[in-house]
Amino acid sequence: MQLPTFADVEKAHRLIAQQIHRTPILTSESINQILGGQFFFKCENFQKVGAFKFRGASNAVLNLSKADALKGVATHSSGNHAAALALAARMRGIAAHVVMPSNSPEIKKKAVAGYGAIITFCEPSLEARESTLRDVISRTGATEIHPYHNFHVIAGQGTAAKELMEDSPALDVLLCPVGGGGLLAGTALSVKYLSPFTQVIACEPAGADDAFRSFYGNQLFPSIQPKTIADGLLTSLGEMNFQIMKEKVDAVVTVPETAIVEAMRLIWERMKIVVEPSSAVPLAAVLEGKVEVKGKKVGIIVSGGNVDLGKLPF
Amino acid sequence: MQLPTFADVEKAHRLIAQQIHRTPILTSESINQILGGQFFFKCENFQKVGAFKFRGASNAVLNLSKADALKGVATHSSGNHAAALALAARMRGIAAHVVMPSNSPEIKKKAVAGYGAIITFCEPSLEARESTLRDVISRTGATEIHPYHNFHVIAGQGTAAKELMEDSPALDVLLCPVGGGGLLAGTALSVKYLSPFTQVIACEPAGADDAFRSFYGNQLFPSIQPKTIADGLLTSLGEMNFQIMKEKVDAVVTVPETAIVEAMRLIWERMKIVVEPSSAVPLAAVLEGKVEVKGKKVGIIVSGGNVDLGKLPF
Repeated sequence: MQLPTFADVEKAHRLIAQQIHRTPILTSESINQILGGQFFFKCENFQKVGAFKFRGASNAVLNLSKADALKGVATHSSGNHAAALALAARMRGIAAHVVMPSNSPEIKKKAVAGYGAIITFCEPSLEARESTLRDVISRTGATEIHPYHNFHVIAGQGTAAKELMEDSPALDVLLCPVGGGGLLAGTALSVKYLSPFTQVIACEPAGADDAFRSFYGNQLFPSIQPKTIADGLLTSLGEMNFQIMKEKVDAVVTVPETAIVEAMRLIWERMKIVVEPSSAVPLAAVLEGKVEVKGKKVGIIVSGGNVDLGKLPF
Repeated sequence: MQLPTFADVEKAHRLIAQQIHRTPILTSESINQILGGQFFFKCENFQKVGAFKFRGASNAVLNLSKADALKGVATHSSGNHAAALALAARMRGIAAHVVMPSNSPEIKKKAVAGYGAIITFCEPSLEARESTLRDVISRTGATEIHPYHNFHVIAGQGTAAKELMEDSPALDVLLCPVGGGGLLAGTALSVKYLSPFTQVIACEPAGADDAFRSFYGNQLFPSIQPKTIADGLLTSLGEMNFQIMKEKVDAVVTVPETAIVEAMRLIWERMKIVVEPSSAVPLAAVLEGKVEVKGKKVGIIVSGGNVDLGKLPF
């Protein structure tokens, strides 16, 4: 299993630079005052399709050979990756086949359809998603682009942290949410290359703590009936992602649901930006005292902003 | 009655530049596609205290003589102006006395208290607010800073549009919400000086249409039992504001409540920013077809982002 390195993140960045947003880094005096650290929020909620996923999807699509590209790409996803892949495919002029669970949030279904994907709905189980995807691929010859267990996807996601390190002062700590581990693995590659002494801490909902168990148990444990409002973090950690994580990540911390909602509210109220629950998990770790931030410069990757406004937890 | 001119906006800008944020101008490809214009959103929701009001309050406080400043400032306000005045006063090291209706949104009460104002609560009627304020002023000798019928406040509010005109390409139209008319009057001063052919259109909830009636009736009519979700626009148009408006504003359009909520949702979902209902009124006018935007460059002043997350209309 070949793992990407920072050189692959750099290659990815050159390849996708023309079609991604270099998202802003926001700061908030009031959040700094409340929490006692100096925070730098890398706002991927302002990325195209509203999430960092567009970086990895773009890199995967742009790395396809012409012959493979002609047959299109395919994935099963609960939302952000699907929207990202659909848009990246459309920008290259190829087809995107998306298998989605029928219970996905409305806003994500609309987004995926809006970006021109060919959607096949299935039951909301991993088995149904995988078997439906196999059918689609055998029928079309499309290349599967896995949401996180994928060389080019990981390299692409690493470009967000690369930009953050380039555009902010030297950080003491970088906090990153972890679900499948695509963002985390890419982030760790960038941070540990560009600033080896910056701590990388993965932040995870206690209700979906497979990365925590895997990291400290030193073997890959899957998620079992995960339950969290952070719907982007329900998936199980991928194998490639785990390998990179073991080598490059300093710690994993978990947070309760109440802290996620409180952190989300803090970000919305004080920073006036819309972020999805998954993006609030790192700040929740700070609220819970799981990360020491006093007097430190703390980077946070805000993963996305796709929430169903009809179903807010406030 | 001496009215401010663009020269006063320029003076204000020099005076307050050190303590305000030069807020970003955001664009959204998806909103442009949906509505057919090219939109430039001047994001005063990212201003200090979360609203443009900090500009005018800062200018008023910084224009006080030393002797007057020592006695403090006072106002009655439903929220954003009060928070703004409190912070501006604190930054000059003087007292801010705020008379607030007891039914103001929680988030606004907390904000005003958090900025160190001395709050006196009163009944939610204009009479109670005015008489309570008179008491406070006679006791303290504080200078009243009216939220919009005030020379320096209007000049300060005009700096937002000044920045928008300086930082964006030439605009065909500028849309501005109108309540008391402080933002509108200041905006009109800046736009008509810097770009006389840019249309300035005031946007108002149909449920609080005193500016519409006053503008087309050519005399100042007060709000009578106004009712709208856009709680920043409930106040009656001020006299100075009306005079400037008559001279510099091209049109006033009104919008129904449903369109305000729809526009607010569009901004939250597509731009991933938190804006208050008042800020959505201009885009509501576009959704309603009250403003022709096809192929035009359209500036919108996003007035603020202070909403009670527990009481969203979605």
